[in-house]
Amino acid sequence: MIFLGIDGGGSKTTCLVGDENSILGNGSAGPSNVIRVGEVETRASLNNAIQQACGAARVRPAEIHRTCVGLSGAARPEISAVARRLLSEMVSGEVEIVGDTTITLAAAFGNGPGVIVIAGTGSIAYGRNTAGETMRAGGWGFAISDEGSGHWIGRAAVTAAMRSLDENGKSPLLERILKTWKLESRDELVVAANATLPPDFATLVPLVLAASDAGDVTACTVLESAGAELARVAKIVISRLFQQEPKPRVAMSGGVFQNSVLVREHFYKSLRSAFAGVVICDDIVDPVRGALELARKGK
Amino acid sequence: MIFLGIDGGGSKTTCLVGDENSILGNGSAGPSNVIRVGEVETRASLNNAIQQACGAARVRPAEIHRTCVGLSGAARPEISAVARRLLSEMVSGEVEIVGDTTITLAAAFGNGPGVIVIAGTGSIAYGRNTAGETMRAGGWGFAISDEGSGHWIGRAAVTAAMRSLDENGKSPLLERILKTWKLESRDELVVAANATLPPDFATLVPLVLAASDAGDVTACTVLESAGAELARVAKIVISRLFQQEPKPRVAMSGGVFQNSVLVREHFYKSLRSAFAGVVICDDIVDPVRGALELARKGK
Repeated sequence: MIFLGIDGGGSKTTCLVGDENSILGNGSAGPSNVIRVGEVETRASLNNAIQQACGAARVRPAEIHRTCVGLSGAARPEISAVARRLLSEMVSGEVEIVGDTTITLAAAFGNGPGVIVIAGTGSIAYGRNTAGETMRAGGWGFAISDEGSGHWIGRAAVTAAMRSLDENGKSPLLERILKTWKLESRDELVVAANATLPPDFATLVPLVLAASDAGDVTACTVLESAGAELARVAKIVISRLFQQEPKPRVAMSGGVFQNSVLVREHFYKSLRSAFAGVVICDDIVDPVRGALELARKGK
Repeated sequence: MIFLGIDGGGSKTTCLVGDENSILGNGSAGPSNVIRVGEVETRASLNNAIQQACGAARVRPAEIHRTCVGLSGAARPEISAVARRLLSEMVSGEVEIVGDTTITLAAAFGNGPGVIVIAGTGSIAYGRNTAGETMRAGGWGFAISDEGSGHWIGRAAVTAAMRSLDENGKSPLLERILKTWKLESRDELVVAANATLPPDFATLVPLVLAASDAGDVTACTVLESAGAELARVAKIVISRLFQQEPKPRVAMSGGVFQNSVLVREHFYKSLRSAFAGVVICDDIVDPVRGALELARKGK
């Protein structure tokens, strides 16, 4: 039998084709977040990723037995209904739409207990205990939540750079931000940062990482805070789900963890100081593997 | 001689007419922030407030010798030029356009040294030392700064309420927020809070104050943090301007200080723990008095 797993993200769509035991092919394409990029682009990204993966696996989409798609916001009917309709046009067999947290948890722990923290453009903590209960914390959107995410890091970097300017009359980090956003002055930055539509603060993450590598104290402080914030949401989930049982394994996923040693270190440190026994998996989880796993198992 | 002082704010315009020694009349009208409400509404607000104040003082606008207007963003030519043109159509005599921080500092300390912290919809700290040097901190706009302001309090309240929901599965503060914004569910709140255009978070301040009075722990924590954040920007200005001289007097202005005992208390506490000798004026400064004072003096 042939199975398909898809991770449909806000910046990238990844796709795995496999049989019962092996991965046969993979594909990747642009974003497939209906709310953000619309139905036309979502359709193109899904189709593109599926065609690539099927091509590599030398199978036709009509041979697929079961598909599992992980999407942010899958609990909202206006998202899952569109995704289900688009997928049913592209592949044969059963289609299951679940949250991006569900496939990431499956990728990290299969059916077992554990807590995952995802930090990409947004952030969230999600866990399941041995009784099968699940719980989330954070991930309520850019304006009020998503602590430690790429958006959060970018916005915090601008805030910290402006504060450093207030305190010292200069900020090397501010110079980097101006250059990245192609702005001339602090006043232009203030207008751009507070605009509606707001800018994509997550685009600043690479420069914050570079600045931190170059020893910029402000950038380091922002990344350390991001690690601590991500540990905070993890702690909420651990406290609620694992009161009566041993502390769980915790896994990390997403580009922020992937690309920043400082974030990972401060995440470790902060989490271990709260729960001495906690085990943190070293590998960064790839959610699409969980999608394929769930497609193999069915509901 | 007759003088006119105007405080042109984002939610209200206030106006005082006086002679050399006395206040003869006052007026108030809607917002006069050109960027936010446009030129037509700004003209109407200014005219309305001036007519009221002149009427009460029994003087004609053509009898005015000098006018001083305090505006947020007065350093930006596209704001000051429009205001100057509008005012020159309405009153006779010299017209001076200065920042809202300048009139508030004048209202609090005349020509003398001191630090003011303004917390309305936005927030900023501004000071002048005995050498006449001035310095600011904060006030860089909603998205990245304005720590402790009405916008900050409202957004922090939504964030804290969502976190309380994550932690405890319920939040009385969240119920109040839903009621105020006329929303049915947590999911509707998440959509509204993260919308572009974002909602006016400062409209939540009255309910945060009411919730705090009713003993809501989350609301109290938000207001205490606001006080501490406002003290932080004050500390930056004090550290930079008053290194070589005795610690200055500090004054408060704006609706957030006016309406919240908790914010004032935590502002006091946080500032006094940093600078033992600092004197904090009890009265909440009314900026328009500074505008009249500056109009009397001329440049």
